[in-house]
Amino acid sequence: MSETFPKPPESSRPTMIDVAKRAGVGLGTVSRVVNGGAGVRAETASRVRVAIDELGFQRNEVARALRPGKKSSSLALVLGDLTNPFYASIAKASLEVAGQSGFAVVLGSVDEDPEGEKRAIQELVGRQVAGLMIVPDQGDHSFLTGAGVPVVFVDRPAHGIEADIVMVDNEGGGRLATEHLLGQGHRRIAILLAPSYYTTGRRLRGYRRAHRSAGLDVDESLVVQLPEGTAEAAEKATSELMHRPDPPTAVFASTNFVAEGVLRALRETDRQPAVVGFDDFRMADMLPIPVTVVASDTAELGRTAARLLLDRAANADTRPPQRIVLPCALITRGSGERPPFR
Amino acid sequence: MSETFPKPPESSRPTMIDVAKRAGVGLGTVSRVVNGGAGVRAETASRVRVAIDELGFQRNEVARALRPGKKSSSLALVLGDLTNPFYASIAKASLEVAGQSGFAVVLGSVDEDPEGEKRAIQELVGRQVAGLMIVPDQGDHSFLTGAGVPVVFVDRPAHGIEADIVMVDNEGGGRLATEHLLGQGHRRIAILLAPSYYTTGRRLRGYRRAHRSAGLDVDESLVVQLPEGTAEAAEKATSELMHRPDPPTAVFASTNFVAEGVLRALRETDRQPAVVGFDDFRMADMLPIPVTVVASDTAELGRTAARLLLDRAANADTRPPQRIVLPCALITRGSGERPPFR
Repeated sequence: MSETFPKPPESSRPTMIDVAKRAGVGLGTVSRVVNGGAGVRAETASRVRVAIDELGFQRNEVARALRPGKKSSSLALVLGDLTNPFYASIAKASLEVAGQSGFAVVLGSVDEDPEGEKRAIQELVGRQVAGLMIVPDQGDHSFLTGAGVPVVFVDRPAHGIEADIVMVDNEGGGRLATEHLLGQGHRRIAILLAPSYYTTGRRLRGYRRAHRSAGLDVDESLVVQLPEGTAEAAEKATSELMHRPDPPTAVFASTNFVAEGVLRALRETDRQPAVVGFDDFRMADMLPIPVTVVASDTAELGRTAARLLLDRAANADTRPPQRIVLPCALITRGSGERPPFR
Repeated sequence: MSETFPKPPESSRPTMIDVAKRAGVGLGTVSRVVNGGAGVRAETASRVRVAIDELGFQRNEVARALRPGKKSSSLALVLGDLTNPFYASIAKASLEVAGQSGFAVVLGSVDEDPEGEKRAIQELVGRQVAGLMIVPDQGDHSFLTGAGVPVVFVDRPAHGIEADIVMVDNEGGGRLATEHLLGQGHRRIAILLAPSYYTTGRRLRGYRRAHRSAGLDVDESLVVQLPEGTAEAAEKATSELMHRPDPPTAVFASTNFVAEGVLRALRETDRQPAVVGFDDFRMADMLPIPVTVVASDTAELGRTAARLLLDRAANADTRPPQRIVLPCALITRGSGERPPFR
């Protein structure tokens, strides 16, 4: 990745707020003066101009900061439920990077609802943002072709459009988790999949490849497609699994919420399978059996996407659409190291 | 609170995306046609207009959605670290309410850094938002007087400006937590305070009042001001407390991160004090000793603030600045119900 985006502003640089304070007026007045002075008394306007000069402000710098609807001043970020720490971490990191370059971020949080996503994108394109970062749903995104601004997809690619994508190595992570469990002698490993997003599909592929490499068949009854990606759905499915005559001795939970549901269910079962989750979560190390996970740097996902989008928006990066894949790592804490029961 | 804000759009209503699809063009082309048609071939423009008519679109509705820099189409939200679930929950809820009224939200997440907060607010005012929701830091906010748009503070009031504030009953919650511990015979209750924000000050006041009502003096050596509001700082302080000759038999943790740090420290100590946290958190019920907390509806905090701001922006609410206080409730799970040790 190139590193051509502008430097962050120094925090000691005087701000518009300092101008307002020194002139003894409100921000709105500073704004009006800089934009021509309509509706401001001559004496007040003069005080504002003096304050601007005294503070060594470039007046056009203020004007630029104040110009409404300026095409290049905001990025849009469209993603799922912000109370999912995975999304919150992406949002936080991309805001930081955008802010360092003087860009605000307009947020659309859409709770994985395709209609909501479309409406949010439409609204944001209408707001003349300089670029879009989208954690896409499964629908067709060809409508974005010709949106007139660069688009970077985060976490998963979209259908119907060629654009940059920043994601994690889902297949590698799925393989890592499964090999870890196979290595400890597990032969009946269930995988619980949140609804068929791209990511969980790739994690399943890694699970299958690990089996194949070990010369083992996958028992398809242990590949469980959840009706939704909630802890509740995972809890119910895990209870059912563990009450089968021949339950799995290990469970690979394909997301953080799925892992939570698996662990909730296991509080009520006699047999305790090994558990590996995908994506780390707060308190994972504090649970009665600390939780082993495959994790990636989700903040880096947000940072990389924001940097790439800023470069695209500034025409500083004119390569064809890129596919940037961040690695996963295994964090062993206990739950994934239980031996198989009989 | 009045309920005069506009109805959410029906999801079956055709969108600009449907227009683009039907006309076989990109969103950018639809935008250009609606805004006058510059740079679009006549035949293409005609196809877009036909699509708009066929879909029963009000053309000025599209135009409105597309007009850049329109003053009334965005709210700004300025708050702390989004990976703190407390802030994420406020952000999610206020985005939902704003979205239902066709407003986007421009986000400034500033990690409780006063300079960062000022810069973010300046940037956002310059973007001509219809109003500001701010979780303020401790600095002076008089610079916002005359910003020309309504301001609603969330979670804590700001200094130097009269404006709406939506918050929780911090003092009542602090009292509730302390009375709960006193009621079980605890007489040495430590309180761990994140740096002196308004909220923890009020929680401390509730702690003192509960003692006074019970006719008890507060041992000031048990009132611990943390150097920062992190789990790490709370962990260190808790270790020190529990290694004193006369340790507390109960700990009141003033925030979710402080509670995490307290619980981390207690994994290493022999004596186990009762623990009550402030604000609920994911997995609180899954820990080895499920965690008792005083909690409020943080999503309701975000919703109420967004509704009030929309009403103010639409001049639908012209009352003097309001102070809306949401209640706290005690959720008992185990950690707060341990009896005092000797």
